[in-house]
Amino acid sequence: MASYYAPSVAQLIEELAKLPGVGLKTAQRLAMHLVKRPEAEVEALARALLLARRKVMHCASCQNLTDEDPCEICADSSRDVSRICVVSDPADVVAMERMREYRGLYHVLHGLISPMDGIGPDELHIRELLNRIREGEVEEVILATDPTIEGEATAMYLARLLSPLGIDITRIARGLPEGGDLEYADEATLARALEGRRPISREQDKD
Amino acid sequence: MASYYAPSVAQLIEELAKLPGVGLKTAQRLAMHLVKRPEAEVEALARALLLARRKVMHCASCQNLTDEDPCEICADSSRDVSRICVVSDPADVVAMERMREYRGLYHVLHGLISPMDGIGPDELHIRELLNRIREGEVEEVILATDPTIEGEATAMYLARLLSPLGIDITRIARGLPEGGDLEYADEATLARALEGRRPISREQDKD
Repeated sequence: MASYYAPSVAQLIEELAKLPGVGLKTAQRLAMHLVKRPEAEVEALARALLLARRKVMHCASCQNLTDEDPCEICADSSRDVSRICVVSDPADVVAMERMREYRGLYHVLHGLISPMDGIGPDELHIRELLNRIREGEVEEVILATDPTIEGEATAMYLARLLSPLGIDITRIARGLPEGGDLEYADEATLARALEGRRPISREQDKD
Repeated sequence: MASYYAPSVAQLIEELAKLPGVGLKTAQRLAMHLVKRPEAEVEALARALLLARRKVMHCASCQNLTDEDPCEICADSSRDVSRICVVSDPADVVAMERMREYRGLYHVLHGLISPMDGIGPDELHIRELLNRIREGEVEEVILATDPTIEGEATAMYLARLLSPLGIDITRIARGLPEGGDLEYADEATLARALEGRRPISREQDKD
């Protein structure tokens, strides 16, 4: 269908349609919009794409996306290094920081255990978390994965894995609505969930 | 909110959020997706953006978007130069061509008369249409603007403007659903609408 467009427009439509949630109609609409915009604006978008893709890396410590290693949070000496909040995605760090109540560090797994999608523990950044804990400064790991099936499974897996290490393992409280997404939680709900965190019963881990 | 992201990611989110229909949440989701994709894929998108923006121009004759002037359709000697189909947008040309029944030429107005949005006849490519008709080869102008208030107003305006020129002026039939959008019409509906086109009564033009 795109072949009735000028080749350069057809090519742009094809590339835009590869984005998640962007169908052919949306890609066409975006392309029509973009070719009408001032050249400087389109250049700014192209530059931002290349810069973000080339510059962004994983923080060697917390695995969050960052332009500099260590990331701003890991490099901040005012943060409480005895606490690590484990989340699935960088957007979850943003949600936590927006709350302005948590002063510990993070660990970004970049996914959740999901056998349906072929994602097991080895696909997540769990080894790096173990290494950080073994360095000895960590006293508490807060499991802040989404309150979904995958998030719960990942939290349970980590609780079992970390329990021999002699640190507190907590789970953010179910102040979050069931089946919800941490990334979209409002600040108050998230704050309550953090406040109400409780140790994971070791009983629960025996199966 | 974006400021909790790495600066390069925040910048990308900001640029993406400028796109029509893309809110902050969608921009964040797209940015998170893009920084995880292979660099070659992101480069392909950036290249397509720049190429389309820099290469695309208006065909000097029909005003459609094209990489070469005259455009492929205007340069095609097998097309019927005695007919011009007037549409509002390049996407409408795509819809017409997809039908594979029309062999005449096009004229793209790049908009519709819309006093609410401050778009009058001078903002559209109407002068270029008059020049084409004055060259003398045109026998019929098919007004194929959307069957909406703006599309009808534009068609009526053009019918009145062109009626002294002694050519047939037709309007695509109301086979299109009222209030619909030509761009999204299915081929059969569009073919019926083209087939059922009828001369605009000169009576109607007197107000």
